[in-house]
Amino acid sequence: MTQNTPDLDALLRPKSIAVVGASANPDSPGHDYVKCLIDFGFKGDVYPVHRREPEILGLKAYPSLSAVPGDVEFVISCIPSDGILEMIDEAAEKGVGAIQLFTGRFSETGREEGAELEREVLRRAREGNVSLIGPNCMGLHDPGWGMSFRPDLPRRTGGVAFISQSGNNTTEVLIHSDVRGIGYRMALSYGNALDVTEAHLLEYLGGVNEVGVIGAYIEGVRDGRHFLKALTSAAAAKPVVIFKGGRTGAGARSAVSHTAALAGSSEVWGGALRQAGAIGVRSQDELIDLLVAFELFAKPAATPGRNVGAVGGGGGRAVQAADACTEEGLSVPPLTDGIRAQLKERAPQLWDWIGNPVDQSILAGGGVSGAAVLEMMLADPAFDLLIANVGEDWVLGRPDSGERLLHLVKRFADIGKQSKKPIAFVLGPADSPDEERWRAVEGARTHLVDAGLAVFPTVERAAWTLRHYVEHWESRA
Amino acid sequence: MTQNTPDLDALLRPKSIAVVGASANPDSPGHDYVKCLIDFGFKGDVYPVHRREPEILGLKAYPSLSAVPGDVEFVISCIPSDGILEMIDEAAEKGVGAIQLFTGRFSETGREEGAELEREVLRRAREGNVSLIGPNCMGLHDPGWGMSFRPDLPRRTGGVAFISQSGNNTTEVLIHSDVRGIGYRMALSYGNALDVTEAHLLEYLGGVNEVGVIGAYIEGVRDGRHFLKALTSAAAAKPVVIFKGGRTGAGARSAVSHTAALAGSSEVWGGALRQAGAIGVRSQDELIDLLVAFELFAKPAATPGRNVGAVGGGGGRAVQAADACTEEGLSVPPLTDGIRAQLKERAPQLWDWIGNPVDQSILAGGGVSGAAVLEMMLADPAFDLLIANVGEDWVLGRPDSGERLLHLVKRFADIGKQSKKPIAFVLGPADSPDEERWRAVEGARTHLVDAGLAVFPTVERAAWTLRHYVEHWESRA
Repeated sequence: MTQNTPDLDALLRPKSIAVVGASANPDSPGHDYVKCLIDFGFKGDVYPVHRREPEILGLKAYPSLSAVPGDVEFVISCIPSDGILEMIDEAAEKGVGAIQLFTGRFSETGREEGAELEREVLRRAREGNVSLIGPNCMGLHDPGWGMSFRPDLPRRTGGVAFISQSGNNTTEVLIHSDVRGIGYRMALSYGNALDVTEAHLLEYLGGVNEVGVIGAYIEGVRDGRHFLKALTSAAAAKPVVIFKGGRTGAGARSAVSHTAALAGSSEVWGGALRQAGAIGVRSQDELIDLLVAFELFAKPAATPGRNVGAVGGGGGRAVQAADACTEEGLSVPPLTDGIRAQLKERAPQLWDWIGNPVDQSILAGGGVSGAAVLEMMLADPAFDLLIANVGEDWVLGRPDSGERLLHLVKRFADIGKQSKKPIAFVLGPADSPDEERWRAVEGARTHLVDAGLAVFPTVERAAWTLRHYVEHWESRA
Repeated sequence: MTQNTPDLDALLRPKSIAVVGASANPDSPGHDYVKCLIDFGFKGDVYPVHRREPEILGLKAYPSLSAVPGDVEFVISCIPSDGILEMIDEAAEKGVGAIQLFTGRFSETGREEGAELEREVLRRAREGNVSLIGPNCMGLHDPGWGMSFRPDLPRRTGGVAFISQSGNNTTEVLIHSDVRGIGYRMALSYGNALDVTEAHLLEYLGGVNEVGVIGAYIEGVRDGRHFLKALTSAAAAKPVVIFKGGRTGAGARSAVSHTAALAGSSEVWGGALRQAGAIGVRSQDELIDLLVAFELFAKPAATPGRNVGAVGGGGGRAVQAADACTEEGLSVPPLTDGIRAQLKERAPQLWDWIGNPVDQSILAGGGVSGAAVLEMMLADPAFDLLIANVGEDWVLGRPDSGERLLHLVKRFADIGKQSKKPIAFVLGPADSPDEERWRAVEGARTHLVDAGLAVFPTVERAAWTLRHYVEHWESRA
């Protein structure tokens, strides 16, 4: 079997799509793929394929691929694995460029017949000059191209690309990064990586200009050398964040039954990522935090320094911010003479008591707000990185709390929009079954997110992110 | 100045309270303290004290402490620091047992006049035989006794005690642990710890039977020897979780301006906590996670083992659960022959593919659910600790998603309620401005929480918590 480098631009942005195994049952993927093409506004031709149904979701359906009148560039396959070989032959006959196999139950079952079928699938596809994505995957989410795999997934477009061997994890990352303001150029759940691998995808994404940062959840690679080469080239072009699944013995065993991946040892992976210039993370939260940083912080003109200025929240939060930053290897210097002089003028009762981080709770009535000090830090070259704690739990205890919170957040957002320095805002999520609280906190978070600002749920995660952000640019210097 | 061990039971559960500096302005603490006593249903006498107002929040107000007709056991002081000495003398005269000084701007300002005033406050209080809580603190939250410092704080009572040098942090911990099902015997923001210190409080709480676990946020201690003795004795009686603020140079500097605390080095603290048998944490999230574990997991009859069984979520989540547990030093063994035999009977198409963790996404239509495997793990002595991933992001993509999620969670809750083994449920928070999603996720979480079950937001935090839970009981063995 020879392998050609697939033409991914054509494969991932097809002009015509057939959904084989399309279904009118709303509790099936064969329904969701068709509905997504409609709901997300896919502009090309869509052909549902179903043995008997004449129409699915208002679209004319066809009994087989060969019965489709026009060209079919891309096939989404939701049929069971026992019909898969016939379908591939038919697709090859029809001149299909690529098939995404949602269809699973191949090598990941651990059974020889599954592995054998998978080998035959690949053989036939190569023979027919058809590229494969999957098997055992949800496929493509590209809202800008009108494609997704679940009708309720976010519509936000942007500069992030995410590839993942796990469909559930792709869904989770999309949902939980959308609320942080992350829009996608594409996300792809690619499953067992039988044909098109993470290496092809990384090579491709490294060259797509609109992609500013790449995230990947990888359980195992088919060809270590190809992967390293592709990763190195992608990471030279833009930040690449790798969430490796199967770092441990039990994790690797689990990965085999998930995507038949050979996970490889944690040490080898750590070394390889460093060598390639990629960033390794250990959880979805870490992955999303770094996508937020690389997508939403302005790309620095020069290597950013490590001096943090922090404002907002009470005294406990100020202490926690200082501890978290310092433990991440960042520096939290005292306020500069320049800022102290400004404070002396504006808050003569308080100026010598205010430090960095700024304890918001001592400022009341003193003539200066946390936001005002944030502005001073923004203008002062002694501070490279900023943290703005919204401190919503305190605000929400006061009268007119919702308005008060929004007022505070608007002031922060106005400052944030002007900033060329990274500012990590700390707020939410609402974390509450109380409706009023939920509305207030999510409303405030949405205001920051809509302003294009980076919001983190805790000061510790903000500090962790700033550290990795700085380390990345240091490693490029 | 001699110091007596204060009679904390009397001080912390007073029968009569005067709020000096009570106010009708809803944007003031002098309002909130009075309103809390009304709203939380304090059963004793409440006396608002205000120079001019005849009535505050419907209660008769008095122009001074000495004008109050009945006994006053406890005073909450919200007046500015310039009236504080006179008030203490008056309280002593009146036979008051203790004063909580919300009043701040003492030594934490870093100014000599503040430190001098603080010393004089202590001198007068000792002279008058009045105990002090604070200054610079929010004071007591004890919903079972009808006391709190903010009208919107949770009403849930339970076996947790929390003491904190930070008022904001106390509020944050109360709010974010309430949604996890944590109820409080008491929480106390004790500020600068001028008189009653963390050591007195730990001694006291160690002996309160209803308190099952103690949490503390401490920036510095006044008397290291006393603290260690008290901590050791409390930790011998029940789990004590210490969140130390000011672990770093910058954090310590910030702590001085917050509570005038001398923070002490991180190394000394780490050693002291270990020696005393307490558990050190580095964030509010870690603190709350351990309060959840020690309050909601059944107290183990014997030292729990480290073998984890995990179910739920897709294949990616299964891999992540295995990695997270293993990296925390827990073990994720394969399914036992006993469970495999049961699976072979119930899911003949799947049984040999199912592993531990259980990938929920392969089970559909196979005759066995994740919950069923959870039950098998519960009954199998090979598993000591369990993780149940709800996987709401997947469920919410299906039709009737809200009902489906609730159905799944109810099944989990029924199993959880019977369990003597710790089960960490992984779900939420909703993390979304979408109302339908918020209702579904928070409804599901509330169902688990109301069943008394331990819910964690990520599988990594569940694994971290199980590890520290086990390590604690191992250290007691």
